[in-house]
Amino acid sequence: MSLTIKVHIAAHFNLNLRTAKQTKLTDYNVKIRPKPIYHSNQLIAFQPKMSAAVKSASSAIKSSLIEPDGGVLVDLVVPESERGLRTTEAESMPKVKLTKIDLEWVHVVSEGWASPLRGFMRENEYLQSLHFNCLRMKDGSIVNMSLPIVLAIDDETKERIGSTTNVALLGPTGDLIGILRSIEIYKHNKEERIARTWGTTAAGLPYVEEVITPAGNWLVGGDLEVLKPIKYNDGLDHYRLSPQQLRKEFDNRQADAIFAFQLRNPIHNGHALLMNDTRRRLLEMGYKNPILLLHPLGGFTKADDVPLDVRMEQHSKVLEDGVLDPETTIVSIFPSPMHYAGPTEVQWHAKARINAGANFYIVGRDPAGMGHPTEKRDLYDPDHGKKVLSMALGLEKLNILPFRMRTFARSGENPPDGFMCPGGWKVLVQYYESLQAEEATQQPAILTS
Amino acid sequence: MSLTIKVHIAAHFNLNLRTAKQTKLTDYNVKIRPKPIYHSNQLIAFQPKMSAAVKSASSAIKSSLIEPDGGVLVDLVVPESERGLRTTEAESMPKVKLTKIDLEWVHVVSEGWASPLRGFMRENEYLQSLHFNCLRMKDGSIVNMSLPIVLAIDDETKERIGSTTNVALLGPTGDLIGILRSIEIYKHNKEERIARTWGTTAAGLPYVEEVITPAGNWLVGGDLEVLKPIKYNDGLDHYRLSPQQLRKEFDNRQADAIFAFQLRNPIHNGHALLMNDTRRRLLEMGYKNPILLLHPLGGFTKADDVPLDVRMEQHSKVLEDGVLDPETTIVSIFPSPMHYAGPTEVQWHAKARINAGANFYIVGRDPAGMGHPTEKRDLYDPDHGKKVLSMALGLEKLNILPFRMRTFARSGENPPDGFMCPGGWKVLVQYYESLQAEEATQQPAILTS
Repeated sequence: MSLTIKVHIAAHFNLNLRTAKQTKLTDYNVKIRPKPIYHSNQLIAFQPKMSAAVKSASSAIKSSLIEPDGGVLVDLVVPESERGLRTTEAESMPKVKLTKIDLEWVHVVSEGWASPLRGFMRENEYLQSLHFNCLRMKDGSIVNMSLPIVLAIDDETKERIGSTTNVALLGPTGDLIGILRSIEIYKHNKEERIARTWGTTAAGLPYVEEVITPAGNWLVGGDLEVLKPIKYNDGLDHYRLSPQQLRKEFDNRQADAIFAFQLRNPIHNGHALLMNDTRRRLLEMGYKNPILLLHPLGGFTKADDVPLDVRMEQHSKVLEDGVLDPETTIVSIFPSPMHYAGPTEVQWHAKARINAGANFYIVGRDPAGMGHPTEKRDLYDPDHGKKVLSMALGLEKLNILPFRMRTFARSGENPPDGFMCPGGWKVLVQYYESLQAEEATQQPAILTS
Repeated sequence: MSLTIKVHIAAHFNLNLRTAKQTKLTDYNVKIRPKPIYHSNQLIAFQPKMSAAVKSASSAIKSSLIEPDGGVLVDLVVPESERGLRTTEAESMPKVKLTKIDLEWVHVVSEGWASPLRGFMRENEYLQSLHFNCLRMKDGSIVNMSLPIVLAIDDETKERIGSTTNVALLGPTGDLIGILRSIEIYKHNKEERIARTWGTTAAGLPYVEEVITPAGNWLVGGDLEVLKPIKYNDGLDHYRLSPQQLRKEFDNRQADAIFAFQLRNPIHNGHALLMNDTRRRLLEMGYKNPILLLHPLGGFTKADDVPLDVRMEQHSKVLEDGVLDPETTIVSIFPSPMHYAGPTEVQWHAKARINAGANFYIVGRDPAGMGHPTEKRDLYDPDHGKKVLSMALGLEKLNILPFRMRTFARSGENPPDGFMCPGGWKVLVQYYESLQAEEATQQPAILTS
């Protein structure tokens, strides 16, 4: 039996760490701010002195970690005590039905990954995102926001909403999810959105085909309220820590540096070596307790990516086998869908991790990239991701850790020595075997001569 | 004889002026900083106290008008005393031949319209322009830069340059124009450049067809030096005032507000009323001597736009006839080529005028817009231009004056009463008659049955 494992094998990476003083404007190799941003012990010492009134006045947790964008972590889940009232209110509103991916965005926005964004974008935010990849706050400060987070509706839904200012959001199965208040409806120019986000309008972009092409010609923006935390009931919800929960966990572990690693593929030993090496270098820099946020993407991915449940099982084995140290690693799911929009999207991946408390972000070759859908080349220059990330507006407070890997083989029937821990490898082999067995039982829909 | 004049007739415009305090983040009607930025008299009083050493140390003129982007107006024309030496030096360098439009960009950059840009963009600047429509300076400040100002070369030229660090630039007729130093050659991904600049990749965009499609697959960036001021010898050079010359002229007239009006069409009475009304409103706001910079675009335009020489003659008549007051108006040519890139390009138009000393910029409906080249609709939402301009990074110091016009007729054989002064109208009629006479003498190249 011939089995091709679709993972990239890479090694001989190197990681450059330097201080900000050594970094010139034109030098994108690395960007590190010299001072630790975390002062856990100080805050812990202060906490008992806070009055009960002060504590209850602030509903959002103010962590001692890197500040979330906009200063306060957004939390749009309605308090349990108000749930009944809001549900009754929502039931009387015009309804907007969400797709599975719309719901992933509701999840993302409601937990504050996109802080300071408080709902689906109105045109003002949409245009800033499209043209400047960032949003200007009222105080003049700038936060990064490279992807338009928007909700599309069709003509019929727009008509039904009419001039109503608030609408209720229904999940794909018809259950009441939340409310969008003070709405604004504006044109969904799909061509412009696609061109400015992906830098191409070629047919075959996965997110475009799945989400944008079938979507309506209008976008509806407004302030989001979610009636209860979004759950998927797929056995993986315990991995879906919100930015608030992650910040608490980092606080509990008394981390003084958080380095985030975004991935949507199995962890091979090249990754593991890189992450362990990063920790070692952070210790050398003077941090006492760097914690790794191992953060697989859990939303929409293209059909040929390894499914989330398989990846999570593989990641578990990697920790079980001790390839990564569970004491200094937190594995959690990042609930965002994938755009595969290269340099534009990697900014979103980095920005969301600031909101989760990370002050270091590891970026590889061609992040969020893919092959050009119609031409025989990479869609993006593989170096542009880290270059754009290092120059991105609103990400100045994040330390970017680029790494270079030299690929020496792209696929193989057997893993080379030291490529992946045996437990993790077995998970993958089983997944691909099940896929082949499934394919074998299916009849081809069209027979070509 | 049937004669269709291709100008838009518009009236019933209104102009809203408010102060910055009244302007919310989400309100793009107008953006005016309350304080006048010009302090001519104060600076004049200080000037005599400047030491000769300080004066000679600064080769660029520091005007008392709004500060140019980056603080100092860029001037890349080699001093006459060094011209011989630099010419000899350039003659030994590998040569890069410029197109007519490349030369227009050399003109633009050399005079400081794109300050603080000092040459054709290297990849660092190119990526910032494409992704963020602005450049971050070394001190962390941000300047607007929405269009990539780049020089394309083909494979053969790249090969010929090899690893040389400086190249000489030749004009379209082979004459030595200048030098590009410390060059960097990088990939010209045309598809991505077009998609991110225009928000479409549809066939038929005038600048794309004229400039980008025939261009080479590489871009060469570097520091520009121009051996002598760029001249066209078309009888219009006296209209081509550099930003430095304009600033001097504004100083001479003791202007305390400069309002710029960009146009690439004949001036009709709607325009004139608008400009006169703007002056009146600025006087009401407390400015003592507002000066209008009437600033027709002089570089590449699409084939069906009215040619520059006809427009300049028409503009002259408008001033002769007293429709605009010559005492408070400066007519000058803006040497940039047109992209027809709507909201992205209008930022460039505004930014360049900051460098020329303007602190007010008038923006109309659908600036730099055109019909979609392949679909029956406007390429851009006609309101997006002024919205994006009002939220644009790096343009905060510029006061944006949007106006709305209600079109009541699009074309006509005779001008409605009060549409255009008789002298100006005659210029246009003669131009279109000459065009028709020319067409009548040409044989069609292909006869379709």
